[in-house]
Amino acid sequence: MAEKKPAERDALLGIGVKKAQDFVEWYSQVVLKAELADYAPVKGFMVIRPRGYAVWENIQAHFNQCIKALGVQNAYFPLLIPESFFRREAEHAQGFAPELAWIEKKEGEERVAIRPTSETIMYDSYAKWIRSYRDLPLRINQWCNVLRWEVSQTKIFLRTREFLWQEGHCVYESKEDCDREVQLMLEEYRKLCEDVLAIPVLTGYKSKAETFAGALYTTTLEALMPDGKALQLGTSHNLGQGFAKAFGIEFLGRDEEKHVPWQSSWGFSTRLIGALVMVHGDDKGLILPPRIASVKAVVVPIVFDKGREAVLAKARELAQALSKAGIACHLDDRDEYSAGWKFNEWELKGVPLRVEVGPKDVEKKQCVLVRRDTGEKAFVKETDLVQEAGRLLDAVQAGLLARAKKFRDENTVEAKSYADFQKAIEARKLVKAFFCEQEACEKKIKEETTATSRCIPFNQSGAGGKCVKCGSPAKRWAYFAKNY
Amino acid sequence: MAEKKPAERDALLGIGVKKAQDFVEWYSQVVLKAELADYAPVKGFMVIRPRGYAVWENIQAHFNQCIKALGVQNAYFPLLIPESFFRREAEHAQGFAPELAWIEKKEGEERVAIRPTSETIMYDSYAKWIRSYRDLPLRINQWCNVLRWEVSQTKIFLRTREFLWQEGHCVYESKEDCDREVQLMLEEYRKLCEDVLAIPVLTGYKSKAETFAGALYTTTLEALMPDGKALQLGTSHNLGQGFAKAFGIEFLGRDEEKHVPWQSSWGFSTRLIGALVMVHGDDKGLILPPRIASVKAVVVPIVFDKGREAVLAKARELAQALSKAGIACHLDDRDEYSAGWKFNEWELKGVPLRVEVGPKDVEKKQCVLVRRDTGEKAFVKETDLVQEAGRLLDAVQAGLLARAKKFRDENTVEAKSYADFQKAIEARKLVKAFFCEQEACEKKIKEETTATSRCIPFNQSGAGGKCVKCGSPAKRWAYFAKNY
Repeated sequence: MAEKKPAERDALLGIGVKKAQDFVEWYSQVVLKAELADYAPVKGFMVIRPRGYAVWENIQAHFNQCIKALGVQNAYFPLLIPESFFRREAEHAQGFAPELAWIEKKEGEERVAIRPTSETIMYDSYAKWIRSYRDLPLRINQWCNVLRWEVSQTKIFLRTREFLWQEGHCVYESKEDCDREVQLMLEEYRKLCEDVLAIPVLTGYKSKAETFAGALYTTTLEALMPDGKALQLGTSHNLGQGFAKAFGIEFLGRDEEKHVPWQSSWGFSTRLIGALVMVHGDDKGLILPPRIASVKAVVVPIVFDKGREAVLAKARELAQALSKAGIACHLDDRDEYSAGWKFNEWELKGVPLRVEVGPKDVEKKQCVLVRRDTGEKAFVKETDLVQEAGRLLDAVQAGLLARAKKFRDENTVEAKSYADFQKAIEARKLVKAFFCEQEACEKKIKEETTATSRCIPFNQSGAGGKCVKCGSPAKRWAYFAKNY
Repeated sequence: MAEKKPAERDALLGIGVKKAQDFVEWYSQVVLKAELADYAPVKGFMVIRPRGYAVWENIQAHFNQCIKALGVQNAYFPLLIPESFFRREAEHAQGFAPELAWIEKKEGEERVAIRPTSETIMYDSYAKWIRSYRDLPLRINQWCNVLRWEVSQTKIFLRTREFLWQEGHCVYESKEDCDREVQLMLEEYRKLCEDVLAIPVLTGYKSKAETFAGALYTTTLEALMPDGKALQLGTSHNLGQGFAKAFGIEFLGRDEEKHVPWQSSWGFSTRLIGALVMVHGDDKGLILPPRIASVKAVVVPIVFDKGREAVLAKARELAQALSKAGIACHLDDRDEYSAGWKFNEWELKGVPLRVEVGPKDVEKKQCVLVRRDTGEKAFVKETDLVQEAGRLLDAVQAGLLARAKKFRDENTVEAKSYADFQKAIEARKLVKAFFCEQEACEKKIKEETTATSRCIPFNQSGAGGKCVKCGSPAKRWAYFAKNY
């Protein structure tokens, strides 16, 4: 190839390690080099760069549409929470105390901390706003930053002291209404993860030890990462009536009597971006599922001195055809980089589909489509471009989900004995096992294997069995794994 | 009228004071009763309720579209800023020092404060990211919360310790590029304020005393509020090269030499919502300009026992017709409130257009349209509803802007002498006067009248004159007013 600057290829800073060889280093390099995020000057914080933030904006747009259709309204509550608020719900206070960042005292006011989550400050307002059953259900969500002063090792997107999230907080007349919508939101999360982000998830209840501080019960979504660790992608809690009692939320019922309502809360965070990187990325870098990618296809003209203008004109034409058909695309017609450099760059940055067009393609009225996930190339007639691009994007979307599902299924082990259990955890598998659900038993398992129960699936077939650890009767089985 | 519960009307908590009589109290009542925002448990903070946040979301959607078309990308930088960063740009440090909220020291790290604005933390990253002229212009914006620990009286939306805003931070090769885009962003702000929010603004430079801490110059948008005070709605700064030098931002130019780039920053905040309330609201409550209202029309059926179903069916039909035509509307078919109660409620909450339909209207195949701004009623044929509603919404949008412009023009005074100047300021007018632009002179004016220069318009006709205060030569005239 007599391209313009072939030597540049060598200079490209690609991913310097293999995903299979050094997963931790690979993850950091993909996040940094695909320009999703960067380290911040304060330890444990991150800068979300435009390419990472665009993913977050796309997640927000998708999810806002879902929740608004369900009657949820967005709002914004203060960043700072008074000390006394944390104390009102005892378990909640205990759960968050070690991670609070307090503000230096000012003007003799009560001590205040940066929100680690907003239950308390929101419910203080709810107590003022809710008067009667006519005000229920109240469904409010906020998109905001929260801060938890982690002391353990932090990792961009997965565990940082500050992160962005959404937290939904709803209030209902009855436990039944609350239960139903706890499940409804978990299902919205599942659809977001599987249908949009192409990340297969397990759903179920959390064990007592893993339940949110102050909740009656917690439901969760868990995904298996390529290193064999589970990652919690979102939770949806039934908070019971504890917070309502602590914050004095009451309503006049249909029976003209005062009642204490039921509450739910549910949240996911920018951690989802980390999950995307880990699950789909490969040795060339990031792979974005088409439904969450801002740029779904990149058009790269392959130019030589001869026929240069014709190729550039054709590339523009193809890019316009894609845009017009609603396939967001980017035309990379930069003069100072070679086509090879551009291929590497857009592979690194995860664009799901590449369209190449060179002088011969112009002649033959064709172009080349390259899938980011499999690297498969296909020659396509110009006139078929839009249809073929659409079909391939759907194939990439489905392919990524199928590949991740296959990985998870192949790395899931059913353990009948504790010896098998230990061996499987050691081999970094996701382990299914009967579990007595006792906190003491889970604590022992964690001490001995570092694994914890990730979720207790909703649909349990069969009559139960014996706890894999202690042998006592177990009604349900659970998934166990090491986790993030 | 034999409506269901006519007595309810008396129970409606409308605005208890006249806008003209007690503006301060009127403002608070509108904000609280229209459910835009609420007081927070920590002094000086606010809760932005769903109705207020929806306005903010609509502003965001509109503005994101504008800036993305200009090549600006959104990102997110950390909440906490190290102490040393503030010190790098001396004027900037001095400007914000009194308002910083520091976090209690942790783990022996440097002291950190909650961001009052993000120049310093963003430019630390920019220094890492910018290498060559190919990386420029760099245009990044973030939507976030900021905190400035105000000691003066706070007021919801107008001056709170925490507020939401957008801050754009751009980097350019040359002063010319920077100057041009400083103006470009100010023009985007002007369009947002005038064309969307229906708030007429004055644009111009800030005097030295009012320039942003660390900037070369500041351009501003100022609006006159009904109480005769000016409100700054947004600013767009040319930061010069000071921050770039302080943070080590350099780029390799087209000439292969190292250069220091030029920077701009620009921002507006949730204060815009306060301006909307003040400028447009009336004794009945909030008035939202149609282009920023989530609900543009409310359909209220007027039901009696007889013909009830026919009226409800017709109301549904009209609401569907409006929605289908892209006019977002709400059908208020609640059973437990009377039509009169509903009229008051939606007037209080600022919905720009009301559609009434009763039994006689059903018979006559008509409905009644009521403009929120003027209260004008019009009988409209069913078949003309969509067209008429669209026309009236345009009329409300234009009418609000015209009314605010008229108020401003009628309350602007040109002062030839300092005596006239003092009298006009005392009478709460916006005052045009020649001004020497000396800091000492502005300080005296402020001490004697509490007014400050609000802006020095870009287009100055004429040959200048003498400073209204000190009599020394003045090249330009400025607007002065008391301000928020």
